Amino acid sequence: MSLIVMKFGGSSVGTTERMQRVARRIADNKEAGHKVVVVVSAMGDTTDDLIDQANQLNDSPPTREMDMLLSTGEQISVALLSMAIHKLGHSAKSFTGWQAGFRTEAVHGKARITDIQPDRLFKALEDGNAVIVAGFQGMTDEGEITTLGRGGSDTTAVALAAAINADVCEIFTDVDGIYSTDPRIVTCARKLSEISYDEMLELANLGAAVLHPRAVEYAKNYNVRLVVRSSFTQNEGTSVKGEAVMEQGIVVRGIAYDKNVARISILGVEDTPGVLATVFGALASQGIDVDIIVQSGVQDGKADFSFTVGLGDKDRATKVVEGIRSKVPFRELETEDNLVKVSIVGAGMVSNPGVAAKMFEAISSLGVSIKLVSTSEIRLSCIIAAENVHDVVRALHTAYGLDTTEQAFVGGPQDRR
Amino acid sequence: MSLIVMKFGGSSVGTTERMQRVARRIADNKEAGHKVVVVVSAMGDTTDDLIDQANQLNDSPPTREMDMLLSTGEQISVALLSMAIHKLGHSAKSFTGWQAGFRTEAVHGKARITDIQPDRLFKALEDGNAVIVAGFQGMTDEGEITTLGRGGSDTTAVALAAAINADVCEIFTDVDGIYSTDPRIVTCARKLSEISYDEMLELANLGAAVLHPRAVEYAKNYNVRLVVRSSFTQNEGTSVKGEAVMEQGIVVRGIAYDKNVARISILGVEDTPGVLATVFGALASQGIDVDIIVQSGVQDGKADFSFTVGLGDKDRATKVVEGIRSKVPFRELETEDNLVKVSIVGAGMVSNPGVAAKMFEAISSLGVSIKLVSTSEIRLSCIIAAENVHDVVRALHTAYGLDTTEQAFVGGPQDRR
Repeated sequence: MSLIVMKFGGSSVGTTERMQRVARRIADNKEAGHKVVVVVSAMGDTTDDLIDQANQLNDSPPTREMDMLLSTGEQISVALLSMAIHKLGHSAKSFTGWQAGFRTEAVHGKARITDIQPDRLFKALEDGNAVIVAGFQGMTDEGEITTLGRGGSDTTAVALAAAINADVCEIFTDVDGIYSTDPRIVTCARKLSEISYDEMLELANLGAAVLHPRAVEYAKNYNVRLVVRSSFTQNEGTSVKGEAVMEQGIVVRGIAYDKNVARISILGVEDTPGVLATVFGALASQGIDVDIIVQSGVQDGKADFSFTVGLGDKDRATKVVEGIRSKVPFRELETEDNLVKVSIVGAGMVSNPGVAAKMFEAISSLGVSIKLVSTSEIRLSCIIAAENVHDVVRALHTAYGLDTTEQAFVGGPQDRR
Repeated sequence: MSLIVMKFGGSSVGTTERMQRVARRIADNKEAGHKVVVVVSAMGDTTDDLIDQANQLNDSPPTREMDMLLSTGEQISVALLSMAIHKLGHSAKSFTGWQAGFRTEAVHGKARITDIQPDRLFKALEDGNAVIVAGFQGMTDEGEITTLGRGGSDTTAVALAAAINADVCEIFTDVDGIYSTDPRIVTCARKLSEISYDEMLELANLGAAVLHPRAVEYAKNYNVRLVVRSSFTQNEGTSVKGEAVMEQGIVVRGIAYDKNVARISILGVEDTPGVLATVFGALASQGIDVDIIVQSGVQDGKADFSFTVGLGDKDRATKVVEGIRSKVPFRELETEDNLVKVSIVGAGMVSNPGVAAKMFEAISSLGVSIKLVSTSEIRLSCIIAAENVHDVVRALHTAYGLDTTEQAFVGGPQDRR
């Protein structure tokens, strides 16, 4: 008998039929003798519909009232799911975030969990109920309803699994696990049976979009065993844990890409001490996240340097740099979009020389030029032109020995029609 | 400066445009220097839509989960209304039932309020906010969400007005007050400027449907001044209070009718002691409400008696009576529907002889026969055939001097198109 946390996203409960399928799955776990705690997101488009309604009344609604509004989406889900479980002859009890004991910071729209007091949940479990908890929400010490922001339901599930010391936290989604790369691009992508937290973090941050980075961080910090699997099949998913076994001869676990990239280059900068600090300090003060930073060699006392930001921050970042031209004189400002960041991720990379060389070779053999490079202990990223992304990802997948012959399963039943 | 409770029903906030109009109305009161507490129902069809969703998953969903589900309807309303008020440049704060301090019995679907702890509301008022409270809901001592059942938002408003000692509780609806009778039948119906709690209770129970009887009872018990008025016009509404002034020469305040009536007659019953107790005890034990009861004289040791029940209870009531035939032998059971109960209501009736005679005269002069009669201190009801109801109500309205020449306003803008 295990204590299992199961998390279902909005598309997994988006219709009556899907809600019933999820209920069946929970009932199966109960019938197998497990104690089950379920975290659910708002159904399908509910959240977007509520945001639309709000915007019709107020183009910048107060965040406190948005939390009041949006938290109803999950409350509807948990109540309906509980009813569907009852219909199968099992008892179940639904809980809002505040009822489940989720305390958060007093910040609306993106609160962090400060504490979980799961007494009521334990009581309901002891009474034989499936416990259904609204994801994405909590309450401040003053009794105000808060939401956790994007990816919040993943975090709810992982934090709850840690708080109640669950044996496993299963994240159900519309793909049946973590793949070595995007199976929509590389049909011979392989499903990973295991991946480490650190690798998953790199992939999550790189836009793999299956798990929210904050949730992975939480799982890592509290050593919660995560399993990512499909809500539409019984396939084994991908286990995310502290140490993941690598297959013989394979160093790179996965290949990710991110289209949300713009490059800004500052050319002919006076190379005086503190130049970088001035530029990136100014960007940070405007809340602009900078990703890759590259400085080329100094010539005649002048340096060139480049950095990348999210596409949506490009114009603001450009203005910031123009704005400090008096403090940091430069010859020219150059920007570029239509770029992609392609990354290889693997915990074993650091101890395997030649991994980077293989990446550069694979890319250059396609005649594609590498615009910027950055590295971490378990990741190597190259910025290339967007038009080449599919070819590059496929070539890298082959080069690192990741190709498989098994058929990837991507998307729910609706996608297969 | 007054402390005003304003209550808006679901149709008053059923669309974005109506929500904005309600926000404007609240803003007007704030701009006039008043402190405003608003109680809102779920928008338009929200509650019915949620019930439909629930029934698709479970034909008899647990009441606890229904309360969890349905309480989101009002939570959405209060959040959106608060946003609309902010848009007009005024601060506002929304509160769920539990946040507003509504404690109830641990009964789902039809809980009664046990206590209100309005500290947070007072704090929000002091900070200059319009306070927006979700109607129809509360929380048990164990932190379970409850709903108050039908008419619940009226009760929320009145109970809150009592708890915070408001100067007035305004109930906004789609008619602009309480009328002497249904203006859809009698175009010369008069809007009443005042009515007493007791008269309103009789009218509410008789199906006037503008105010829920429980809310009127509450208002009476706590002496809350109620005003019923239209959300679509600025017309003065009807004031409901302890003593209402009668116009010179007018004894009857209003005329109500109720189509939800069936008659059951038991003919040729052995007239032994305890017969009535046996019959009505059996009906009560099945939860069947009996309204009018009439026993005719005894002849040859046999009596006839008749009673009325709601239309929906007719068949069950018939079965109950058949079921006790061995204990209460009778000759014949007779039932009749297509009936209406027409009632005249007025606090001055008891001290005015001749009021009843005038009713019987007015009805019989139309050639309509009266099937049953019942009386209370401030009410006189006759059961007649349904086909005659309009003629009878019009004739009574004229007979008691209630006709007016002013135009009645019924329904919102959509009804006038």
